[in-house]
Amino acid sequence: MHSDKTVIGIDIGGTNTTLGFVDLSGSLMCEVTLDTQPEQPAHILVERLSDQINQLKSQMPLAIVSAIGIGAPNANYYLGTVENPPNLKWGASVNLVELFRQKFELPVAVTNDANAAAIGELLFGGARGMRHAIVITLGTGLGSGIIVNGELLYGSDGSAGELGHTTVEPDGRYCACGKRGCLEAYVSATGICRTVVELLGQRLDATPLREANYNQLTSKMIFEAASRGDVIALAAFDITARILAMKLADAVAHTSPEAIFLSGGFAASGDLLIVPTRCYLEKFLFNSYKGKVKLLRSELPDGKGAVLGAAALAWGEVAK
Amino acid sequence: MHSDKTVIGIDIGGTNTTLGFVDLSGSLMCEVTLDTQPEQPAHILVERLSDQINQLKSQMPLAIVSAIGIGAPNANYYLGTVENPPNLKWGASVNLVELFRQKFELPVAVTNDANAAAIGELLFGGARGMRHAIVITLGTGLGSGIIVNGELLYGSDGSAGELGHTTVEPDGRYCACGKRGCLEAYVSATGICRTVVELLGQRLDATPLREANYNQLTSKMIFEAASRGDVIALAAFDITARILAMKLADAVAHTSPEAIFLSGGFAASGDLLIVPTRCYLEKFLFNSYKGKVKLLRSELPDGKGAVLGAAALAWGEVAK
Repeated sequence: MHSDKTVIGIDIGGTNTTLGFVDLSGSLMCEVTLDTQPEQPAHILVERLSDQINQLKSQMPLAIVSAIGIGAPNANYYLGTVENPPNLKWGASVNLVELFRQKFELPVAVTNDANAAAIGELLFGGARGMRHAIVITLGTGLGSGIIVNGELLYGSDGSAGELGHTTVEPDGRYCACGKRGCLEAYVSATGICRTVVELLGQRLDATPLREANYNQLTSKMIFEAASRGDVIALAAFDITARILAMKLADAVAHTSPEAIFLSGGFAASGDLLIVPTRCYLEKFLFNSYKGKVKLLRSELPDGKGAVLGAAALAWGEVAK
Repeated sequence: MHSDKTVIGIDIGGTNTTLGFVDLSGSLMCEVTLDTQPEQPAHILVERLSDQINQLKSQMPLAIVSAIGIGAPNANYYLGTVENPPNLKWGASVNLVELFRQKFELPVAVTNDANAAAIGELLFGGARGMRHAIVITLGTGLGSGIIVNGELLYGSDGSAGELGHTTVEPDGRYCACGKRGCLEAYVSATGICRTVVELLGQRLDATPLREANYNQLTSKMIFEAASRGDVIALAAFDITARILAMKLADAVAHTSPEAIFLSGGFAASGDLLIVPTRCYLEKFLFNSYKGKVKLLRSELPDGKGAVLGAAALAWGEVAK
C-alpha cells in the first residue's frame, strides 16, 4: 500500500515534460508525459500541467499533495527562476515558482535537472545515507550535482556543480557555451561523436562508422559498433573514459565524496564507459583518495531519475 | 584591551613551528617560534611546545586558554592524526590530538595548514561573513581549503580540498606526489622555477636567469627579474597565471564561491600573479559565474596566516 501523502515531481525537457506523483519511499504512483511545446511561453506549459495535476488528483481522492518540485534546464533554486533555457523559447528569465504558486497553495521549488538527479539519488537511490557524493548526468550534455554534508550544494548564487564546463584543454574543442575545451564537449553523447569523427580522420582502420556523415552519427551507433568490437568505437570509449576519469579525480580533490554516480542515457552504455573510467580514475586520484572512492551507476530506475529527483526536491521542501 | 579568553594556535612546519595565543578578534597576544627538529619523534616536539605554553601562561596569569588548534602537513581533522608528513620523520601516523590531550585538559583539533589558513580567513580575514569561499596557499607547494555553507569542507574522510593535485595536463610534469601534471607542479614557488627552466630551453631571449643553474634558481629571483621587466620572467608569470586561472575556474564550477583568496609567500608577488590571473579567470569562467567571483589577496597579516588559522580552528572547537 502506498502512503496517501505524496508530492509532485515535474521534469521539464526541451521535447517532453513528465509529471509524477511520488511518495516518500520514491514510488511513482502515477505519471503523465506531455509534449513541452517549447515554442510556447512558460505560462502555457504551467497551465497545461495544472490541468493535468487537477485531473490526476480527482482520480486519486485519498492523495494529499504536500509540495511541487521541478527540474528544468538553467533553473536557479535560490531565485525560483529558469534563465535563458537553451531549448525553450521562454526568454531571459521566467519565475516558475511564482507561476505554480498562482495555481497551487503549496511549497514549490525548482532546480536544474542534474541537481534534481543528485537529490533523487540521495533520497531514493544509491546515495541514501551518504554525506558526500557526486552525481553526473550523461546525455546530450554533461550535468552534475554535488552532495556535501548530506545536502545538495548550491553555492553562493545557486549555480554550484557545473562540471560539464570545467576545462579539459584550454585550446581544445569549441563548446556550445562559448568556451573551449569544456568537459561536456568530450564526455557526452555528442562529445563521443566528435571524438569518433576526429579518430576517423586520424586513423585508417576500416569501420562502418565511416558510412555515417557527421550529422547522422549517434552515440547509439558508436555503442553498437563498440559492442561488436569495432576498433574506432572502442578507442572512442577509451578516450572518453580517460577524460571523464581525469575530471572526476579533480572533483574528488575538491569535495572528497564517498561515491560518484553516473546516470542518464549515455551512462547506460553497458560496461563500455564505466569499467575503463574506474580504472583510469584510480590512476588519476591523489594518494589520499586512492581506493576510497566508488564509481557507481545510478540506482534510480532508467529514465525516471529526473522526475524522481524533482519529487525528492519537493520532499526536501516539505521537511523544511 | 585584549579579552582574557584566548586559544592557542600552533603551526607546525618542516623547519619552524610557531605557537601563539590568539583572542576571538584574531589578535596575536604573544608568539614563539621553535626549531621543529624534524628528525625527532613527534612527542618530543609536543613536550617542547607544552613547556613553552606553560611558560607563556605563567607570564599571562589572567589568560584563560579555551582550546588548542594545530595546523600541520598531512593532518586529518576527523582522526586527529598527522600521516606520513613529507618533511618530518614522524612515521606513518601520529595522533597529535591525543599527545596534546595528555598534556592539557582542553579541546584539541588538528587540520592541514591550508585548511587552517581557510578557517583563519573565514574567522579573522577577508572571508568574514562569506558562506562560500576558497583559500589557496601558494608556497613551495599549492594548498587549498574550501568553505561551504560557512564551514570548512572536510568531505567523507577529512581530506577534501587538495586542489594542488588536480590535473593540468595528464601527460605533463612529474609531481612529487607520484602523479603527472598536477597543478602544484606548475603553480607554486617551485613550479614557476620549472617553467622558467623550460622557457630558457625554448626561447632565445637574453636574461640574467640563464646564469643560475636549476638548483640555484628561486621564485624570488624570478619575481625580481619580472619586476625589472625581464621577458622570460614575465612570460613565466603569465603562464603561471593562466594555468592557475584555468583551475580556479574549475573550482568555481564545483562550489560557486563568492571569492577566492590567495595567501602565502608566493602569492605575495605584488601584482605580477594576481592581476593576470584575474584577467584569465574571467575568460575561463562558465557564463553563469562571469563577473561574480572575486579574486582577492588574503587579509591576514603576512606570515601569520597559519598560526591565526590554527587559532581559528581552536575557536571553532570552543563554539561546539
